[in-house]
Amino acid sequence: MSAPPHPADPAPYRALVRPPGARYIEALDQRMLPHAIVRAKIADADAVALAIRRMWVRGAPLIGAVGAYGLAMALDRDASDLALTRAHAALDATRPTAVNLRWALDRVRDAVSELPPAERADAAWCEADAIVVEDIAINHAIGEHGLALLYQIARHRSGPVRVMTHCNAGALATCGWGTATAPIFLAHLAGLAVQVWVSETRPRLQGANLTAWELAERGIPYTLHADGASAALMARREVDLVIVGADRVARNGDVCNKIGTYGKALAARDNDVPFYVAVPSPTIDWATASGASIPIEYRDADEVLQIAGRDEYGQTQKVAIAPHGARAANPAFDVTPARLVTGLVTERGVTRASEDWLTAMFPDRAAVR
Amino acid sequence: MSAPPHPADPAPYRALVRPPGARYIEALDQRMLPHAIVRAKIADADAVALAIRRMWVRGAPLIGAVGAYGLAMALDRDASDLALTRAHAALDATRPTAVNLRWALDRVRDAVSELPPAERADAAWCEADAIVVEDIAINHAIGEHGLALLYQIARHRSGPVRVMTHCNAGALATCGWGTATAPIFLAHLAGLAVQVWVSETRPRLQGANLTAWELAERGIPYTLHADGASAALMARREVDLVIVGADRVARNGDVCNKIGTYGKALAARDNDVPFYVAVPSPTIDWATASGASIPIEYRDADEVLQIAGRDEYGQTQKVAIAPHGARAANPAFDVTPARLVTGLVTERGVTRASEDWLTAMFPDRAAVR
Repeated sequence: MSAPPHPADPAPYRALVRPPGARYIEALDQRMLPHAIVRAKIADADAVALAIRRMWVRGAPLIGAVGAYGLAMALDRDASDLALTRAHAALDATRPTAVNLRWALDRVRDAVSELPPAERADAAWCEADAIVVEDIAINHAIGEHGLALLYQIARHRSGPVRVMTHCNAGALATCGWGTATAPIFLAHLAGLAVQVWVSETRPRLQGANLTAWELAERGIPYTLHADGASAALMARREVDLVIVGADRVARNGDVCNKIGTYGKALAARDNDVPFYVAVPSPTIDWATASGASIPIEYRDADEVLQIAGRDEYGQTQKVAIAPHGARAANPAFDVTPARLVTGLVTERGVTRASEDWLTAMFPDRAAVR
Repeated sequence: MSAPPHPADPAPYRALVRPPGARYIEALDQRMLPHAIVRAKIADADAVALAIRRMWVRGAPLIGAVGAYGLAMALDRDASDLALTRAHAALDATRPTAVNLRWALDRVRDAVSELPPAERADAAWCEADAIVVEDIAINHAIGEHGLALLYQIARHRSGPVRVMTHCNAGALATCGWGTATAPIFLAHLAGLAVQVWVSETRPRLQGANLTAWELAERGIPYTLHADGASAALMARREVDLVIVGADRVARNGDVCNKIGTYGKALAARDNDVPFYVAVPSPTIDWATASGASIPIEYRDADEVLQIAGRDEYGQTQKVAIAPHGARAANPAFDVTPARLVTGLVTERGVTRASEDWLTAMFPDRAAVR
């Protein structure tokens, strides 16, 4: 594991840790945040699959890295071709929308499949480590490119730069820095005043539970709001820029991200607020022509019908918000058409959301599809 | 109290009841729904003010009617000019955005202020009763005009007409039938199949708590969803028509309604889904030129930071969703520009959202401003 080519995220928490030499990982149980900080040791591929499916770990880049480690754990038990294929399929089936998971699993598989079985597990752990290191570097680079956008705004404003985000595309969604949050975190470290609008992000409340917690941990001012207030806040000229993450970006620049993103993009367009998407290159799906072909995960209705929080005794519990027997629909993601996206902030720089521009920035990736 | 000119709402519940001859009202405590059905007796003007401010009763038409009764209760105690002025001001100050409250208070005041003090209270109770009867009739008429829109859609579809609403513009927000729900309720009674998309409406969850409950009570199929899913559901062609209520409509047709409405209108426009607003004429503020002049109520941050629901023992309790010390912004309403509104459904028919069209439909009202 070589030294990271970019500064490490100085945050006091990390979503994912592989202790040196360990054949397991430790991950924050993100279902418990911000009410309790629980670090779970995950030591086999089935547990990894469960952790991804139940969203102990979540966030496109993070589930890619965790999935990669899961494949390594599977190979520790059985490094045969059959076991490799089965573990790859089982991990890939945990969540359908984010493309990073498939990308990371393919990468580990391709790195080990030509090796003799006895060498595969070590090579897989190595490859997973490399994915983690690269993720941190990619996010830091996204942060630097995004920071330039924030400085542009700061030149024309006296107060803090007011950035709105959605869901959690933070360090908790990645191996460090986050994607949409990287520019914010770097701005704060550089002494550029920022103020973050955090939409709570129903149904799972990743904004209220995770992004708010990350910002508080780092001492960055933020204000929480209901998702439905996003458009009104923009109309009141209280937002300088929106930046969100992505679970998958199609070749034409359509952005699949947490449910609510598309509505936020519409509001940004109607109010001339720049709308950026932080996109590490593993999130770009060159094989998918447009957002219409991206599979959208529908999750359990109970995520809408019940809300978890901290009761007056500090215990985490769920309360039901609807009448007994209520039905609910729970699409977890939506697609923001490329036409609504001001720019994609990638590790190589900011580009327009279109096939031509994406291909020009990633000619090496676009060609191999 | 004359017989209502339109059929009474056959629902098994009513938000507001004045028992015959009573000098008090009974109102459903809407903070408790759907978890508990509590009918509160409210017998003095201070209690009315509290019930409006704390949202035991809510909904623009309902707080108008309840406020009117509050003024009658105040006059029961003291019918002097000074008491009338004071009670009017105290009730009017409870909530700033919905214009029906001011309209109803003015109407009662104007009906009694020229009378000798000894006759004022009785006249006020009478006028408040008249407001209730008219509200039911207005909403029924809105329902009939809206029903025609639903039938238009049904002619081109084989399945149920899929209507999306927001917040609660139901019978609970009025004296009967509701505004946005009146076409839905009439459709159901007429045997026209409808399926209702109910956005939960954070922060106070009036969709999940109230609209879902009303639909369940009436046996009308509905599906709850997170507010952020509205745009995606429209993009997936799962919504035939959106109809919402309003707290105040400016002379130019701009619509002030529950936070989240503006974003829903943007999504409807982007997906060519008709977006209607049900508007009883007392909700039109002829004195306000555009939405920019409408005062927007900001409510307590705790409404965002804490969510009330039913725990596993069936008890209602609140849970906190954000880190300790989190800040939150809580604008209760937003303004949907008239350009995004397909039509206003009033008791006199459907009109475009513009000053010219509104004036043509209500020449008698527009002239007196």
